[in-house]
Amino acid sequence: MSRSKPSRDLRQKPSSGPRQFRNSPPSSARSDRKGITGDTWLYGDHAVLAALANPARKVRRLLLTPAKMAGLDDNMKGQIDEIVAAEIVDRDIITGLLPENALHQGIALLPHPLADTSIEDLPDREDQTAMVVAVLDQVTDPHNVGAILRSAAAFDVKALIVPDRHSPPITGVLAKAASGAIETVPVIRVANLSRALDQLADRGFWRIGLDGQADQELDAAAATIRKVAIVLGSEGKGLRQLSAQKCDLLAKLPINPRIESLNVSNAAAIAFYELARQIRSLPD
Amino acid sequence: MSRSKPSRDLRQKPSSGPRQFRNSPPSSARSDRKGITGDTWLYGDHAVLAALANPARKVRRLLLTPAKMAGLDDNMKGQIDEIVAAEIVDRDIITGLLPENALHQGIALLPHPLADTSIEDLPDREDQTAMVVAVLDQVTDPHNVGAILRSAAAFDVKALIVPDRHSPPITGVLAKAASGAIETVPVIRVANLSRALDQLADRGFWRIGLDGQADQELDAAAATIRKVAIVLGSEGKGLRQLSAQKCDLLAKLPINPRIESLNVSNAAAIAFYELARQIRSLPD
Repeated sequence: MSRSKPSRDLRQKPSSGPRQFRNSPPSSARSDRKGITGDTWLYGDHAVLAALANPARKVRRLLLTPAKMAGLDDNMKGQIDEIVAAEIVDRDIITGLLPENALHQGIALLPHPLADTSIEDLPDREDQTAMVVAVLDQVTDPHNVGAILRSAAAFDVKALIVPDRHSPPITGVLAKAASGAIETVPVIRVANLSRALDQLADRGFWRIGLDGQADQELDAAAATIRKVAIVLGSEGKGLRQLSAQKCDLLAKLPINPRIESLNVSNAAAIAFYELARQIRSLPD
Repeated sequence: MSRSKPSRDLRQKPSSGPRQFRNSPPSSARSDRKGITGDTWLYGDHAVLAALANPARKVRRLLLTPAKMAGLDDNMKGQIDEIVAAEIVDRDIITGLLPENALHQGIALLPHPLADTSIEDLPDREDQTAMVVAVLDQVTDPHNVGAILRSAAAFDVKALIVPDRHSPPITGVLAKAASGAIETVPVIRVANLSRALDQLADRGFWRIGLDGQADQELDAAAATIRKVAIVLGSEGKGLRQLSAQKCDLLAKLPINPRIESLNVSNAAAIAFYELARQIRSLPD
């Protein structure tokens, strides 16, 4: 896929290294893209610099305030020159292009969407490399999805799978919450989540649903499993019954029973941390 | 302190059990209260029901839509009657009282503030019961502070210590993100964070600063420590040098080195999870 090229060296974090599933070309412009569409701007240092550092990301426009431009080192300026002709504009111009109250830090970027990624791009059943993917069952808050992407990048979760309906589009708000992680963690939008869970099983993933009512805790449940698809329910209702039934097992986090649930992005962060811990303890 | 009474039984989660440090009275109306002040409304099911379930929480007004009232069971209605005369009003009345876009779910409550809690209310040096408190060094986003409180309640963190300046007041937004946890996790507002860190040491707490640049990881750093004060830095800048210097040790979470940091509420959730795990493995 197109993200297998080395990242552009912008000498600045996040350097967003490449993420390679296999040596296949991108799975073409198949689906209706709900990724970054039309005039959705990215803004804020992390989201914009990560987009610039991503060789797979084509850039339409880059706007900076004079102060922001002055703050970049020469190397960085040279790198930007190779990607796009930066437009130096007043802060208010940027503010006017963005949603109300967008904290843009004087920098905004209008990207082309990334190539779609599909479940077929994930490693197949024969590949038993230890890994985690995450499935979000109708998590609708873009801040939550963004924060989950950020944690996914931090703990090497290979992809985020979301239903095309009931999931927020990748807007600037989501990208800012993701702090650059939309460039490094592929978001796979699927028409049918139930079918996607079948496809994950076909590819050798154990589907673990996070459910506060489960009998066993995640650390015990995930022990010795090499390929995990962790399934997270919505903010309000948790895992839908249909999704829960598709899971190979259900597991809970060890929270005080008086507390109904965690914020979904916090639950995801803990799950990713625990699963990464489990993977480190596996034999190669 | 006043929260040592049993919780009101509202037969509904969150049941917010009592939280008792020691049998002293509340530490009186000492500081300027930045807790819930004047006309700050709580709203949303969890925040309001948790306030109603908290025997230490005095209630000034409770507003419900007719539909919300009709959805309550008789037991619940009876319990509410004992606390406050509920006002049944149109949805728009509630909306008009609250900040713009507040998702109130047809229920809002105007509380009196809780009694202040201070560091002197925490267990002293002689008490070696294993426990965790959290210190927030200038976390300013009320959503983050609310989510951190929610995770603190989930993992039995005994108190959240925040600088009085540079911390958001406990507004409805924060309380909603906390999902009831402002009723169960005391927020200790201090004038001087550096002095508070000294006081924690005096009471036998090991101060562990979460810092991405630390050499050791949190699970190794916290092993065998019975009383932990976990210190978390701000969203943007992380731990301030002054706070870091006050810590007995610094520790990091094992995130991909390409990623600069996690969202602070996600980092807090993972830290609380890991510290609770460590405590479970301690001898009694």
